Amino acid sequence: MTNEEYFKGRRTVRHYTTEPISDGEIERLVELAAHAPTTGNMQLYSVVVTRDEEMKRKLSPMHFNQPSVMASAAVLTFCADFNRFVKWCEASYTKPGYDNFQSFMTAVLDTTIFAQQFCTAAEMNGYGCCYLGTTTYNAPEIAELLQLPELVVPVTTLTIGRPAAHPEDCGRLDPSAVIHHEHYRDYTPQAISAIYAEKEAREDSRQFVAENGKQSLAQVFTDVRYTREANEHFSRVYRDFIEHAGFKFPK
Amino acid sequence: MTNEEYFKGRRTVRHYTTEPISDGEIERLVELAAHAPTTGNMQLYSVVVTRDEEMKRKLSPMHFNQPSVMASAAVLTFCADFNRFVKWCEASYTKPGYDNFQSFMTAVLDTTIFAQQFCTAAEMNGYGCCYLGTTTYNAPEIAELLQLPELVVPVTTLTIGRPAAHPEDCGRLDPSAVIHHEHYRDYTPQAISAIYAEKEAREDSRQFVAENGKQSLAQVFTDVRYTREANEHFSRVYRDFIEHAGFKFPK
Repeated sequence: MTNEEYFKGRRTVRHYTTEPISDGEIERLVELAAHAPTTGNMQLYSVVVTRDEEMKRKLSPMHFNQPSVMASAAVLTFCADFNRFVKWCEASYTKPGYDNFQSFMTAVLDTTIFAQQFCTAAEMNGYGCCYLGTTTYNAPEIAELLQLPELVVPVTTLTIGRPAAHPEDCGRLDPSAVIHHEHYRDYTPQAISAIYAEKEAREDSRQFVAENGKQSLAQVFTDVRYTREANEHFSRVYRDFIEHAGFKFPK
Repeated sequence: MTNEEYFKGRRTVRHYTTEPISDGEIERLVELAAHAPTTGNMQLYSVVVTRDEEMKRKLSPMHFNQPSVMASAAVLTFCADFNRFVKWCEASYTKPGYDNFQSFMTAVLDTTIFAQQFCTAAEMNGYGCCYLGTTTYNAPEIAELLQLPELVVPVTTLTIGRPAAHPEDCGRLDPSAVIHHEHYRDYTPQAISAIYAEKEAREDSRQFVAENGKQSLAQVFTDVRYTREANEHFSRVYRDFIEHAGFKFPK
């Protein structure tokens, strides 16, 4: 398979065979992923590996019982981690200043870049992966279960395993829809309509609208999947947890 | 080159040949990268491409004149973008609720995953890339220059071009340093010392300490590169800009 074929052909995989994943294999993939870019070579992340059945069972409701948790060979919780780096600074008799929003964002970027490189390395080695966006919703419960110390915040999660099937392409916007040359050119109503026409016309989109008893695909997003009420609730939860973990937002 | 060789051999590249990069080539790489995972298939990102010399000259100080900006074939500013999606929702006669911190974080994850997939696709196609962490520091100036509308926030930047040299490996922590099985096991002073010993002993680290007139490598980070004063200043700047762009933090 060429690289081009890999990139275009990759899919999110939620169904796995029962084949387990070994310590050595996880370590090998982490080693590949850890060469990904990282701010000032600080590697501001940790990954907590969940394979124990009992731990998975406890983690599952924190991801709203998405079936890929229990079905996976491992659940990997990627955390923004300034704890290790700060402990190193303190051991070197210097005073770190990383208990703030900017440092948190730096660690979030490091963590996400690392997670995505892990995902790509895993997929190129025959694994299937699925991100769980629920990580930022239920960060407090996840952190408690995984015994995360101060300055460690869950950012995203991947489930991983050998694919039990190869899912269909769910489609993407035309590249021109996300590229802006020199300046951002804002979207006219005509442009918006053209950009989303193919997505709306897809058979799976229409089914999705019908199943949810809605009039349009956008309504499924605003009224069912990602509602204002939920977004605002989880904004408070995540903000409070980030502060609780020791990253203070500016007053 | 095998995938394993790519992952282990990849380096951040800051020096480029004068070979330009075409519209078609950027579009091709964006298309490859856009198959990366994205929350609910929302693709909450845009990329603004800077190739015009005059625009690069204006952008350069916003990245503290890091030489890779002027040397690159293109500067790519990756932005968290809810503008396009919200315009689509409004055109579909529904009321979006994405003007909040949780939605911003969702878009940050989407954007960073996309940027990293772009970086990997570019590197696998013979380009060299360099992330500019200065993006979150000077987001207000960058947004003004690139004419970003509401709900669009710069998250990270890549410079890209054909490599003029292949940099040395700058080293990474042993994989075991970032992996935790089932629970986070916090680091003892002995563990910290062991984890960072190789990094501190490197010739380039020692030179870095000497050049900065410091006693330890950690001091270069805390006292020179990422100081409390700068982190706290840029925390306020970025927080204020995110709110200015329309993503409100919870009260």
